[in-house]
Amino acid sequence: MAIEDVLNELKSKIVDKLPKGINVSSLEFEGPELVIYTTDPKAFADNGDIIRSIAKDLRKRVVVRPDPRMLAEPEEAIKRIKEIVPAESGVSNHYFDTDTGEVIIEAEKPGLVIGRHGSTLREITKHIGWTPKVVRTPPIESSTVKDIRQYLRSVKEERKTILKGIGRKIHRPISNKDQWIRITTLGGCKEVGRSSFLLSTPESKVLIDCGVNTGAESNGTPYLYVPEVSPLSQLDAVVLTHAHLDHSGLIPLLYMYGYEGPVYMTPPTRDLMALLQLDYIEVANREGKRPPYESALIRETLKHTITLNYGDVTDIAPDIRLTFYNSGHILGSGIAHFHIGEGLYNVAFTGDFKYEKTRLFDPAVNQFPRIETIIMESTYGGMHDMQPARRDAETELQHIVKTTLSRGGKVLIPTFAVGRSQEVMIVLEEAIRKGIIDNVPVYLDGMIWEATAIHTTYPEYLNVELQDMIFHKGQNPFLSPAFVRVDSSQKREKILQDPSPCIVLATSGMMNGGPVMEYLKMYGPDKRNTLVFVGYQAEGTLGRRIQKGWTEIPMSTNGKTEVMKINMEVATVDGFSGHSDRRQLMEYVKRMEPRPERIITNHGDENKCLDLASSIYKKHKLETRSPMNLETIRLI
Amino acid sequence: MAIEDVLNELKSKIVDKLPKGINVSSLEFEGPELVIYTTDPKAFADNGDIIRSIAKDLRKRVVVRPDPRMLAEPEEAIKRIKEIVPAESGVSNHYFDTDTGEVIIEAEKPGLVIGRHGSTLREITKHIGWTPKVVRTPPIESSTVKDIRQYLRSVKEERKTILKGIGRKIHRPISNKDQWIRITTLGGCKEVGRSSFLLSTPESKVLIDCGVNTGAESNGTPYLYVPEVSPLSQLDAVVLTHAHLDHSGLIPLLYMYGYEGPVYMTPPTRDLMALLQLDYIEVANREGKRPPYESALIRETLKHTITLNYGDVTDIAPDIRLTFYNSGHILGSGIAHFHIGEGLYNVAFTGDFKYEKTRLFDPAVNQFPRIETIIMESTYGGMHDMQPARRDAETELQHIVKTTLSRGGKVLIPTFAVGRSQEVMIVLEEAIRKGIIDNVPVYLDGMIWEATAIHTTYPEYLNVELQDMIFHKGQNPFLSPAFVRVDSSQKREKILQDPSPCIVLATSGMMNGGPVMEYLKMYGPDKRNTLVFVGYQAEGTLGRRIQKGWTEIPMSTNGKTEVMKINMEVATVDGFSGHSDRRQLMEYVKRMEPRPERIITNHGDENKCLDLASSIYKKHKLETRSPMNLETIRLI
Ligand SMILES: [Zn+2]
Ligand SMILES: [Zn+2]
Ligand SMILES: [Zn+2]
Ligand SMILES: [Zn+2]
Ligand SMILES: [Zn+2]
Repeated sequence: MAIEDVLNELKSKIVDKLPKGINVSSLEFEGPELVIYTTDPKAFADNGDIIRSIAKDLRKRVVVRPDPRMLAEPEEAIKRIKEIVPAESGVSNHYFDTDTGEVIIEAEKPGLVIGRHGSTLREITKHIGWTPKVVRTPPIESSTVKDIRQYLRSVKEERKTILKGIGRKIHRPISNKDQWIRITTLGGCKEVGRSSFLLSTPESKVLIDCGVNTGAESNGTPYLYVPEVSPLSQLDAVVLTHAHLDHSGLIPLLYMYGYEGPVYMTPPTRDLMALLQLDYIEVANREGKRPPYESALIRETLKHTITLNYGDVTDIAPDIRLTFYNSGHILGSGIAHFHIGEGLYNVAFTGDFKYEKTRLFDPAVNQFPRIETIIMESTYGGMHDMQPARRDAETELQHIVKTTLSRGGKVLIPTFAVGRSQEVMIVLEEAIRKGIIDNVPVYLDGMIWEATAIHTTYPEYLNVELQDMIFHKGQNPFLSPAFVRVDSSQKREKILQDPSPCIVLATSGMMNGGPVMEYLKMYGPDKRNTLVFVGYQAEGTLGRRIQKGWTEIPMSTNGKTEVMKINMEVATVDGFSGHSDRRQLMEYVKRMEPRPERIITNHGDENKCLDLASSIYKKHKLETRSPMNLETIRLI
Repeated sequence: MAIEDVLNELKSKIVDKLPKGINVSSLEFEGPELVIYTTDPKAFADNGDIIRSIAKDLRKRVVVRPDPRMLAEPEEAIKRIKEIVPAESGVSNHYFDTDTGEVIIEAEKPGLVIGRHGSTLREITKHIGWTPKVVRTPPIESSTVKDIRQYLRSVKEERKTILKGIGRKIHRPISNKDQWIRITTLGGCKEVGRSSFLLSTPESKVLIDCGVNTGAESNGTPYLYVPEVSPLSQLDAVVLTHAHLDHSGLIPLLYMYGYEGPVYMTPPTRDLMALLQLDYIEVANREGKRPPYESALIRETLKHTITLNYGDVTDIAPDIRLTFYNSGHILGSGIAHFHIGEGLYNVAFTGDFKYEKTRLFDPAVNQFPRIETIIMESTYGGMHDMQPARRDAETELQHIVKTTLSRGGKVLIPTFAVGRSQEVMIVLEEAIRKGIIDNVPVYLDGMIWEATAIHTTYPEYLNVELQDMIFHKGQNPFLSPAFVRVDSSQKREKILQDPSPCIVLATSGMMNGGPVMEYLKMYGPDKRNTLVFVGYQAEGTLGRRIQKGWTEIPMSTNGKTEVMKINMEVATVDGFSGHSDRRQLMEYVKRMEPRPERIITNHGDENKCLDLASSIYKKHKLETRSPMNLETIRLI
């Protein structure tokens, strides 16, 4: 059946379901969405349930857009919006998109613009024709978020064409009668870094993650040259579990080598991904290395990004539906669940996950409508990879900070910008607020501030307690006056010279470069100060050396190498990891619903992947496998 | 390094090794051979050891050919050959190939033309310039062999161009620095039929076997459409273990879909393959089915066939060397052993194998210079798949024949043309010769005669005892006057009407068509006759039904279906299989030298493959795997 016939058939089904007289001017696939254009947007707005029921029946994501002839003039529309929306919503901006008939309303409190079950939105639609979309005015302005929104608006025409092309490809008729499902491992097996998988059926090919091992001299990139994934132009979709570079780092390269299709991810992943990718090429430039790609390719990636929220069941190929579930690892991190065929098979890729409630996130989801095979990470899959309870870790950290401050010292915490920093910030904010530690400034240096700003843009991706604090108690811990942004070298210099006690969170997390080095040089010699590691220190990094007890560190300042003496206290607080420890990995499998048939372990050193696989097999009697890179496993 | 530079470097190495004054006019890769052209063929002929030592040093197959200017006129050459070669050699034909400078001498006793260590051949070269190649005059003329030789001579110009192209491709410089070796299963895993594997490295791709399941309604062909093997034009080589259609059946199709490279196999495999492939399309035509390909594609396959004898170590790709070892299954059947990289890895595919000395062949080889992984067949891999000793099977067969003949009955033995027939023929010939059974005619109907003729063409592929009988005792059992060829329907009709006792071997082996059906119709009703099954009867075949005890068989004669009553005795003699039974499979692994690291089982029903793999693992503590089709296993 040709795609036009598919659309015609869908149209008549929709018209049948609509109350008489509601007009459908046209129907179009745009990306994974089925778009109904109408001259009666009010009528549709009044019948919100009908759209939901149509979407459910058709098993498609259905959106309604006004026929372009129905749209009010922007000035008129803005006036009307102001009348409808309560003033407390804090509307700060409007962007009219004449192609989609959408008006994007930036507001401090989007909930008030949306109204109960979308009632206010429907009211707006009724009066202005335009379809309102509400986005949050970031409480801390994120230049990343702002730039991305602006960029996407600037390419909206091209993007619409792209989405139409993608939509038609997704809904093409199925042409193959063979039945098999395969996973090819392209990177990240029996290792951490360069995660990448190919999921293929006779009909479709989907790439899951495309990471890079930034630390590797060789073998840092997935095996994208093998015939299974070439030509890249034949991939149907790329799916990104989360923003960390070991999963997202080489996605822009795909667009250099011929890929032109969509990348699916959650909205926060998109923004964090762009932030980390830009940083990746900046670091390369700073270190005099050839950057892996130019920023133009990051923009190309954004142009092809389709965001999905947790739980959105979405067609991404004729025989594949994707749904993201919270994985509890970092902001927007998702377990990518694929439903293949009509009830044929279900496979999920956990990406990195934390099966424990943290200060920021709910624990990873392990209940799915159906699941036969799950590919799970094994970072802490070894027999003895137990971590202390998070509560204990928090108490320990508070204790160290308190002791250090009380002897007039400074606390230096090296962290990565995304994940650990925000976790530690919340612990510190609470301790300060409750008077457990002194009210000293907490300086945020490096990308931490920007990453935090992105967190404040998506509070609905934080856990329920945090959302409750932010939305109902009006108490956003990230906005605490204790946090001070360090955004210039002058400011940093001033802090470095200031003798008063303070806490510094600075990148990079393993002390192989970044502003943390400046603080180390200044604070290192004074034994009243404390250096606190809250994250994993890889072999070969300076962080690892200091952790192991090195006290004489060769440092190059202005081209001259000097040996620096580390007299400051060095402490390690385990338990803040965004990865599940061994017990959590085992529990995750044990409590999974429904019980899967097979578990594939990856994303861990060889012995961790093997140990976890064999323990799961022994304990839970599930078929397990721990493939090498470049293998293909047949699921069905 | 460009290929011309490679050749120049080789040339100077060779010249260095030659005694002063021996001229090398040029050097060329032709297929896997390195060809030295010289104006001094006599000098080379006098220094046979030097060529062997050069070949060993360079690790290449080196042949010397006369510079075309050195060649005597054919008439003159024939005269000289007659003078040199003893008359008893029975030279029957000469074919001069002006391109290669070769003269092909067909003789009844090739050994006498070759002489001790090739001394007579060198003598010939010295006097005529042409390089003599000796082939056996088949003692029973095989039209297959004759047609193939004639066809190859007719395309020799084109073939030379093809070989040069292949030679240069094989010896191209290695361009990739990654190191991995993978096997992709394309067919024949957890099933019998459509055997096919891809062996790939970053540099090369080799397809091993490309069979067909002729009985299957669907899923009868290997998965050649997956990206791992497409485009087929990028394969470096195809390797065929043996002629049976479940290994060779779809090789001609490769040339339809873009493959243009070589197919490696032993010389008998080439001839048997062509015979079986031609029969495959003839049967399809006869049954009114669309044949899978035309005979032109079988010729195309022959044109690209490069034959290798057991033990010839041959470069087939820049990083892969192939050697065939006897597998004891059928004439010319080989275990394909691949040496990858310079000492990097060794993997062998057994194809079908028999690890027991049979009337025809030596047991399969299980000693290799090196071996890390072996892919082995599992036809009889089940716990209880034991077969009687061959001696007992022979005695049993003789007993049945004797009893039947003595009561005035006829013996009907359905067999496949290749393998079982010749085995049974030798047993019957011996029994008649020794007077164990009466001297009755043994009729050979179907392709059995032709297949036997091919066996007599390659006595060096038979076991030592048989070779000894043929060469030294002048007693070729295949030439016994007891064997009578049935080559026309008139002849068959006469035999059917003849009331005297006799033995009939007729195809097909499972009684799903073929001349055996005529004999069944005639002999079935008479209870003095006996039907003897000596081979496996697959589920769903008539043979299987009769074996299970059916006595009323619906038969269609001239379009009318009648029920035929089977009164004849029905017997089954196990133990003639060309496959190793369970005990032999286990022994093969146990006695393998050196001990491999990993065993992959295939070519058997799912439970046989799994059972064998798990038994080997338990008993021999070797890593085993039993993949599905469409998986990729990484070896290194
Ligand atoms: Zn991560
Ligand atoms: Zn990761
Ligand atoms: Zn066979
Ligand atoms: Zn076979
Ligand atoms: Zn008996």
